[in-house]
Amino acid sequence: MSKPVRVGICGLGTVGSGTFNVLTRNAESIAARAQGAVEISMVGARRDNPDCELGSTRLSRDIFDVVRDPEVDIVVELIGGTTVAKDLMTEALQNGKHVVTANKALIAEFGNELFALAEQNNVVIRYEAAVAGGIPIIKALREGLAGNRIEWLAGIINGTGNFILSEMREKGRDFADVLAEAQALGYAEADPTFDVEGIDAAHKLVILASLAFGMPLQFSSVFAEGITKLTPQDVEYAEELGYRIKHLGVAKQNGEGVELRVHPTLIPEARLLANVNGVKNAVLVEGDAVGPTLYYGAGAGAEPTASAVVADIVDLARELSAGQQCRVPALGYVTSELKDLPIVPMARVTTAWYLRMEAEDKPGVLSEIASIFSEQGISIEALIQKAPAEGETRVPLIMLTNKAIQGNVDTAVAAIESLESISGEVTRIRVEALDG
Amino acid sequence: MSKPVRVGICGLGTVGSGTFNVLTRNAESIAARAQGAVEISMVGARRDNPDCELGSTRLSRDIFDVVRDPEVDIVVELIGGTTVAKDLMTEALQNGKHVVTANKALIAEFGNELFALAEQNNVVIRYEAAVAGGIPIIKALREGLAGNRIEWLAGIINGTGNFILSEMREKGRDFADVLAEAQALGYAEADPTFDVEGIDAAHKLVILASLAFGMPLQFSSVFAEGITKLTPQDVEYAEELGYRIKHLGVAKQNGEGVELRVHPTLIPEARLLANVNGVKNAVLVEGDAVGPTLYYGAGAGAEPTASAVVADIVDLARELSAGQQCRVPALGYVTSELKDLPIVPMARVTTAWYLRMEAEDKPGVLSEIASIFSEQGISIEALIQKAPAEGETRVPLIMLTNKAIQGNVDTAVAAIESLESISGEVTRIRVEALDG
Ligand SMILES: NC(=O)c1ccc[n+]([C@@H]2O[C@H](COP(=O)([O-])OP(=O)(O)OC[C@H]3O[C@@H](n4cnc5c(N)ncnc54)[C@H](OP(=O)(O)O)[C@@H]3O)[C@@H](O)[C@H]2O)c1
Ligand SMILES: NC(=O)c1ccc[n+]([C@@H]2O[C@H](COP(=O)([O-])OP(=O)(O)OC[C@H]3O[C@@H](n4cnc5c(N)ncnc54)[C@H](OP(=O)(O)O)[C@@H]3O)[C@@H](O)[C@H]2O)c1
Repeated sequence: MSKPVRVGICGLGTVGSGTFNVLTRNAESIAARAQGAVEISMVGARRDNPDCELGSTRLSRDIFDVVRDPEVDIVVELIGGTTVAKDLMTEALQNGKHVVTANKALIAEFGNELFALAEQNNVVIRYEAAVAGGIPIIKALREGLAGNRIEWLAGIINGTGNFILSEMREKGRDFADVLAEAQALGYAEADPTFDVEGIDAAHKLVILASLAFGMPLQFSSVFAEGITKLTPQDVEYAEELGYRIKHLGVAKQNGEGVELRVHPTLIPEARLLANVNGVKNAVLVEGDAVGPTLYYGAGAGAEPTASAVVADIVDLARELSAGQQCRVPALGYVTSELKDLPIVPMARVTTAWYLRMEAEDKPGVLSEIASIFSEQGISIEALIQKAPAEGETRVPLIMLTNKAIQGNVDTAVAAIESLESISGEVTRIRVEALDG
Repeated sequence: MSKPVRVGICGLGTVGSGTFNVLTRNAESIAARAQGAVEISMVGARRDNPDCELGSTRLSRDIFDVVRDPEVDIVVELIGGTTVAKDLMTEALQNGKHVVTANKALIAEFGNELFALAEQNNVVIRYEAAVAGGIPIIKALREGLAGNRIEWLAGIINGTGNFILSEMREKGRDFADVLAEAQALGYAEADPTFDVEGIDAAHKLVILASLAFGMPLQFSSVFAEGITKLTPQDVEYAEELGYRIKHLGVAKQNGEGVELRVHPTLIPEARLLANVNGVKNAVLVEGDAVGPTLYYGAGAGAEPTASAVVADIVDLARELSAGQQCRVPALGYVTSELKDLPIVPMARVTTAWYLRMEAEDKPGVLSEIASIFSEQGISIEALIQKAPAEGETRVPLIMLTNKAIQGNVDTAVAAIESLESISGEVTRIRVEALDG
């Protein structure tokens, strides 16, 4: 075997310590797979982590020492964020070091320039851990499905959000109530905005979309709608209609361009994605040759995420141990072949809809609504109308529409909301059949 | 970009024509991904295939012309079987050509010698399409999960069998009846033995196991039990108990060695694998770092299989276009590091069991049975006992045991079958919780 490949780990938090532990525990099989030893040459961490026994590994309290160390071949960036991490990665690349990272925010927001910098310096950036934790979905899109034209993909790519939705459904609980529990369990951050508003999912989605469609990263173009307004009623009505509500990231190529959207979505209960529960992640990908494929597993956690980090290290080590270059482009396509595909504005996106409204319980209301829809070319596929509660004159009306352009739905909903017989706003959730 | 990588396709049947068509249709994106054009330099086929427009592509009626052609870099073997295909592959490797194949029988039975021959000739064999069609499961095990110690895997890896079991469950139909339909639909061969007796699944399982555990291929060691004896009743009773019956390939590392087994299996209905229906395939893999991950998609068909063939070609092309070597070992581990792990004999394998028997409907029978089990250290976890049909004195007794060593179950079942009050044989099906 050849000389060892030397890794420097920056950041010794959840994923950093997981990576250290997996590389150490499985060192023997990793060497057998990588065609040579993978050594942890150095760790950069402001402080110790009790989950991690560093032993005689070189340690610096200054993470920048790692990217400057002549003995480090691969820098593993696990500090997170887009400020210091960006400086750190930039310096690592400039110093001719390959980089492995789990940092979806950094890749989604600054990937284009970082990938270009890596190319200039003849090194690569690998980021399998940045999307869906331990699931090798980046590799699947970049390599395993390389023969396909990807038509669309849809994923549960935020474990916290999926935990909350699973609990809401299984136990009929409120969003706020479950969120508080998720925070107590450590599944959700003190500031849950990134997770529940879909920002974290948007970071991941934009990465998946660029890999799928061969386009530069366009984080600012992702539409993101959170799950904070979902009610247990909507979850229950969805169920009555044969659907589950999931927080999906959807990327789709259509004639006009690419749709990039994160939003609560009703999906038929028989779909595998509908049955992905708790903190787990899954991504469904539709390719023109292969049809649908799905990838499922842990989207977060110390060792699941480390699994992906180590897979990237092994990929690199296999090449480096033979003095070769890593030949898989950062986004699967050669940079010069990436195409700046137009992003479809949401008003032009076509989906089916779940709509819930409060209506006067009197004759004629339904036909008023139906005629508004019909003007917009929308038809109603399913309807739930409940008897009014004792002493109530209003009833909830729940309907599923057929597929319609969002602009038309916007117009119809505005007209419905202005009806005398309808009180308050219409609750709207998109529906995806996920059947090709 | 660099000079094109030239592919020669041998065999123009289902997968051969699919591969030709995908390479042709998606040539542009494939070139953008492979860092250079992938050209079909030559096709070898005894006869034309109407699904395939060869145009000006060079064609020979002698497939051996392809492996001898100086302009072919990669030979794609899609004739199937283990005779001519083996000669063809051997000559290709000796002529310094890389090989891509979908031939699970050939890899499972002769992979060890073929991989060695490839190494001697400084070329590689790639076989993503050999297991689970278009699902990139080989890549996941060989690369995506390379940081893990794989503990076990379980897969639905024969689409024909899964179609039959899905139909039996959904429509309460007989095995023979559904098999006939599957044959008519073209899902099952005229001679269905390979599919329904688990031989095809055994071919695939042994490949997965070698990749997972880093051992040479040991096809002759796989235990295979078919699905031909399953009855609609068993399917229904399983359902009553909260289970589905699937034909699983299971590979597991335990303290004693490796279990390699294909058999009908009850799995809890909530598991994703239990919800994989029709001709689809899925593989569940448990790694020490990542936990469970699952891979789902089409296990067969012209273009789904071609998707995997083309992915292998792109992997090769990415390296070859830069004059590099392919550095991922055939079985994920460097050959010298493969370990000849012992195979656990079935009598030593521990699983839970579903048992069905015909018992006299009289007091004391159940306690006789319970005491036989108890002597073997086996306990009963669930029981279905039906009232006797009008005029019948015997009743079906269905039970689920806890986990027990098969040898003990064999002993207990023999004792039960010799009871006066039990008629006929005890029907036995293994149960896997698939929960880690
Ligand atoms: N956790 C997961 O399950 C998961 C899953 C997928 C991807 N990721 C990604 O992985 C990365 C790391 O996440 P994590 O969960 O491991 O975070 P974490 O537990 O908070 O660990 C971050 C580590 O980086 C250190 N650090 C942060 N800023 C630093 C700075 N400016 N200078 C020096 N050290 C700094 C922290 O040190 P102190 O302790 O001293 O602050 C801490 O040790 C993030 O990009 C995250 O998005 C995480
Ligand atoms: N079909 C699938 O969905 C699928 C999925 C995964 C893997 N595979 C594997 O892919 C391989 C090909 O399967 P397939 O379904 O494409 O089979 P197929 O449709 O029967 O095609 C086989 C082709 O090879 C040719 N051929 C066979 N023996 C030959 C010989 N001795 N000399 C010259 N040509 C010969 C046949 O020619 P003639 O037509 O003249 O006989 C035919 O064109 C097999 O190893 C199979 O296990 C298939």
